[in-house]
Amino acid sequence: MSRWESPIAKLGHVATHTTDLDESIWFFRDVLGLKLTEREDGVAYFRGLRDWEHHTLAVIDSGQTGVDHIAFRTKTPEAVDDLAESFEANGDDVTYVEAGEETGQGEAIRVEKFGHPFEFYYDVEKPPAPEGERSRLKNRVYSEASGNRIAPRRIDHAHVQDSVSPAHADWLQDDLGFQLNEKYLTDDDETWGWWFSVTPLPHDFAIHRLEAGAEPMFDHLSYHLDSLNDLWEAGKVLAEHGIEPDAWPGKHAITSADYLYVTDPASGLCIEFFAGPGYLNFEPDWDPIEWHESEIGGETSHQFIGEGPGWDGLAYPDE
Amino acid sequence: MSRWESPIAKLGHVATHTTDLDESIWFFRDVLGLKLTEREDGVAYFRGLRDWEHHTLAVIDSGQTGVDHIAFRTKTPEAVDDLAESFEANGDDVTYVEAGEETGQGEAIRVEKFGHPFEFYYDVEKPPAPEGERSRLKNRVYSEASGNRIAPRRIDHAHVQDSVSPAHADWLQDDLGFQLNEKYLTDDDETWGWWFSVTPLPHDFAIHRLEAGAEPMFDHLSYHLDSLNDLWEAGKVLAEHGIEPDAWPGKHAITSADYLYVTDPASGLCIEFFAGPGYLNFEPDWDPIEWHESEIGGETSHQFIGEGPGWDGLAYPDE
Amino acid sequence: MSRWESPIAKLGHVATHTTDLDESIWFFRDVLGLKLTEREDGVAYFRGLRDWEHHTLAVIDSGQTGVDHIAFRTKTPEAVDDLAESFEANGDDVTYVEAGEETGQGEAIRVEKFGHPFEFYYDVEKPPAPEGERSRLKNRVYSEASGNRIAPRRIDHAHVQDSVSPAHADWLQDDLGFQLNEKYLTDDDETWGWWFSVTPLPHDFAIHRLEAGAEPMFDHLSYHLDSLNDLWEAGKVLAEHGIEPDAWPGKHAITSADYLYVTDPASGLCIEFFAGPGYLNFEPDWDPIEWHESEIGGETSHQFIGEGPGWDGLAYPDE
Amino acid sequence: MSRWESPIAKLGHVATHTTDLDESIWFFRDVLGLKLTEREDGVAYFRGLRDWEHHTLAVIDSGQTGVDHIAFRTKTPEAVDDLAESFEANGDDVTYVEAGEETGQGEAIRVEKFGHPFEFYYDVEKPPAPEGERSRLKNRVYSEASGNRIAPRRIDHAHVQDSVSPAHADWLQDDLGFQLNEKYLTDDDETWGWWFSVTPLPHDFAIHRLEAGAEPMFDHLSYHLDSLNDLWEAGKVLAEHGIEPDAWPGKHAITSADYLYVTDPASGLCIEFFAGPGYLNFEPDWDPIEWHESEIGGETSHQFIGEGPGWDGLAYPDE
Repeated sequence: MSRWESPIAKLGHVATHTTDLDESIWFFRDVLGLKLTEREDGVAYFRGLRDWEHHTLAVIDSGQTGVDHIAFRTKTPEAVDDLAESFEANGDDVTYVEAGEETGQGEAIRVEKFGHPFEFYYDVEKPPAPEGERSRLKNRVYSEASGNRIAPRRIDHAHVQDSVSPAHADWLQDDLGFQLNEKYLTDDDETWGWWFSVTPLPHDFAIHRLEAGAEPMFDHLSYHLDSLNDLWEAGKVLAEHGIEPDAWPGKHAITSADYLYVTDPASGLCIEFFAGPGYLNFEPDWDPIEWHESEIGGETSHQFIGEGPGWDGLAYPDE
Repeated sequence: MSRWESPIAKLGHVATHTTDLDESIWFFRDVLGLKLTEREDGVAYFRGLRDWEHHTLAVIDSGQTGVDHIAFRTKTPEAVDDLAESFEANGDDVTYVEAGEETGQGEAIRVEKFGHPFEFYYDVEKPPAPEGERSRLKNRVYSEASGNRIAPRRIDHAHVQDSVSPAHADWLQDDLGFQLNEKYLTDDDETWGWWFSVTPLPHDFAIHRLEAGAEPMFDHLSYHLDSLNDLWEAGKVLAEHGIEPDAWPGKHAITSADYLYVTDPASGLCIEFFAGPGYLNFEPDWDPIEWHESEIGGETSHQFIGEGPGWDGLAYPDE
Repeated sequence: MSRWESPIAKLGHVATHTTDLDESIWFFRDVLGLKLTEREDGVAYFRGLRDWEHHTLAVIDSGQTGVDHIAFRTKTPEAVDDLAESFEANGDDVTYVEAGEETGQGEAIRVEKFGHPFEFYYDVEKPPAPEGERSRLKNRVYSEASGNRIAPRRIDHAHVQDSVSPAHADWLQDDLGFQLNEKYLTDDDETWGWWFSVTPLPHDFAIHRLEAGAEPMFDHLSYHLDSLNDLWEAGKVLAEHGIEPDAWPGKHAITSADYLYVTDPASGLCIEFFAGPGYLNFEPDWDPIEWHESEIGGETSHQFIGEGPGWDGLAYPDE
Repeated sequence: MSRWESPIAKLGHVATHTTDLDESIWFFRDVLGLKLTEREDGVAYFRGLRDWEHHTLAVIDSGQTGVDHIAFRTKTPEAVDDLAESFEANGDDVTYVEAGEETGQGEAIRVEKFGHPFEFYYDVEKPPAPEGERSRLKNRVYSEASGNRIAPRRIDHAHVQDSVSPAHADWLQDDLGFQLNEKYLTDDDETWGWWFSVTPLPHDFAIHRLEAGAEPMFDHLSYHLDSLNDLWEAGKVLAEHGIEPDAWPGKHAITSADYLYVTDPASGLCIEFFAGPGYLNFEPDWDPIEWHESEIGGETSHQFIGEGPGWDGLAYPDE
């Protein structure tokens, strides 16, 4: 199945639990500069300045930390039903989410695969920015962030970890039509990292492999910034707030993008700001790029040419 | 037909005629910084620093100016045959191009639609950059441009003009699966501009309408630059070479991108450098944005919030 | 006299009249993003985000437009008295300004030279930014501008026009120790532009020549921005506010800096935002650079390599 | 003595020894992108793209590593003689350098102070860039760097270390008229860092204190880059060459500037690339900024808000 035949259009949003919703709102809205589109029934809904959908991050006040679900938007309404059917045929346990159960969203399904809680939906509201915050550029949503906040533009990708990554990767390619753009191999030629996409982004979704027996985890959710200047300014905003990021700005060799990582203390959710040119992959006949441990270092973090931050993921909550 | 069902993967290249190949090579390689991948039988083949394919611009030494063909790459080899079949069923005159007839390219077909010379192909070589110019970032092709040259990263879009644009636009949407992202309407509500895409780019291909009876023309081919700094530096490079661009850097409201336009004197081909954030459109349920003449001015050029340069296109050569 | 022997340390501020103080406050604070340090007795005092002094712009509610005075700060308190003495010895009419008469400022003197109203002062308050707006970087004053506003960093230079420029230029060099960095000559070799500095900036003060008999005028006051991104963003901020600048971003050959010009409707004061590398001139043995009309065009405006905007100055008010 | 009364105009150049001149030329010219203005008698002379003087770095083929001298340019020719006189009156051993002994330079004097080898000169050649490399912007020297090289614009500052810093600092202030802009204090309130300037730059010269008895050392020579994009690109250039810098891009709190540090293996000379807004200090009544260990960490390196790289200096050679 090619990525054009994939039922999935894009990464839609991530929902996380939090131990303190007010503190998470301070972090995501007042420091990170996400827009709070709605707060209802103990859930806060956020989006970036150029996200069209109702939310690309939901934060649930539950006294726990951990990711509740990772949601993909399908290309058609029918694709949601088709996926449900094929999951059930496969023996997976599918949960049906009513329209409106998640604010701003239509009917959806949820399923756990390889230890990760996925959601698939098509119908979603696209509220305009409030009067006064709306951009005169109609191809943007909000005009600008307020002062002294980072201004995330749009959701970019999610990254998870598990010990069953090879099977997980096969499922993404064979069943869901994701294209494998890049992979990371140890010096004994075992694959430990996969960067997948259904869009021309370098990745919409990535998996990092854990040792056998380790619990599946959520690594980070990424938002895109326009430029290196924005990324650097993000560092300055954190410094002005007295917040130490997980990693100051650096450059990944894999995906060729510039990064900064910072974690919300209340929810434990790690956000990667992702900027710089990266690359867009329009090729229909792509051979996955292979990076070897010896070329870019192992788990070493924060390198300019390197693999990225150490892999301390966020456990999914028990429910 | 949705853009995912489109047979087309991307804009592949444009081929132009030139009155002086050496002068065109000076312009495209030594000033604009495109990489010359091959020069054979009176044709020079160029690509940007991150273009994977053999060429994204071909320049044909024929003593004429004007665009020879606009080539789209299909998603599959079969799609080329299917398109040929459907064109012939429609009564269109299809030309078959042998593998290798265009250097680096496999079998292709050509057809004239609405006065524009289109090509469709799938098979193409992807030569690595020569030793010494190759990037250690494997997701890039060339490491860098040489000094005092602009460094176009990748082909972005093509823009044409004709008097039969509404029918042309319908064909692109209905037969080829292009998604209409934005359009421009005069104050009496007639559409005079269409911005189409099969990818998440704001446009892969656009049409500007001409008065009834006017000849179809080619407007410009666009290459992407990473950042505003690159665009500004492009202006400085032209200034150092004593070349006056068609338009110094400015910002388009439509597509939300930053531009600079400059024309090769020998071929008459206008190149737009396209930078800045623009936007990526991943939405499966997009309502085309409508811009009205009164909002952003008419044919006025070079405006920050405006429609762009005046529309002096390049006639296709008589053959 | 070398610039190190000059009595002048820097351009301090400009004071302008306005026909509508509230509208000017909207323009300078809410759009241009200057900080309002004080509003008292019908005068509003502004400064940039990294200006240490109490104000670098004063706006006087007087029902008139036009610049009230152009103020230079001296290197020592004594230099103010020495200047007063030498002006009086020369027969100039010196006005003595009491400490506090201009809020935040100590004793000063005013004198009209070549039709321009100059002020010289040394003592001035340097109020910290209010709590909550103060930068944790102690070498900055304010942390950041609020959203959707330009963020001028510091006062840069002032530019005036008169028909007696050659004598005016001699006075600046011989009596005040300004260094001539660049000049502009017409094709018949007459100098029509002078760019002067007592600091390493490309200019602190410039003169444009007018035809004989023309009234002396004030051209513009300039604030510095950090980067090209800031300048471009400034254009976007104006566009979001629906304000048309006098000149969209472009590049000056003279001073090698990037610009954007915009005028406050209520006071008529034109502000130039000045960004980009420009150059710093530390040379003790500088030969002024000469630019000829034929090299960079005449009065043509908005050119990338060009002289800058047309010269429509602001008349000084009759008092 | 104020900085305007200082005999010194600017930092002029640094001369270093090298164990391998060819390798140093490869490093400084082919990687770092400095321009080689001359190679004569076993000395290579370099400058940045906008340095007017004959050289801002000299590299001496002597089989040793270590800095030979740190040269300041005076404001007048007489100042060189006056300094010589006052050094000798003080009992210092002054060496007289003949015109031409250092290529491109007139008469100069050398003196060792606090263990550091200083030179003072006024006369120096200012060769234009060779035809073909000259910028059409007359206020620049070279048009651009060649490809895949960093493009240092101009010399910025030098940084040294010694155990007698307090006396060294007094000499710079009292005898040479340097202004103290910022200082760094340990938690027990001892000053361990001084940032001095005779120009409005945040520093032309800085001292870091060493434990009593430690040998005086040279820390680094700094070149200025225009923008954050240039700094990031510098990182990419090093990565493409397979060179690991001493510190990837980060931000200093002190001086408010962005940095990258890299060392020439053959000479041991550490170069800091210095970019970003920093700040310009035009104030005649400046109170030095005090940074405390508890505010920005101690010797911790590479922090965004931090003090900078660890202090591994370069010993001066025995001669």
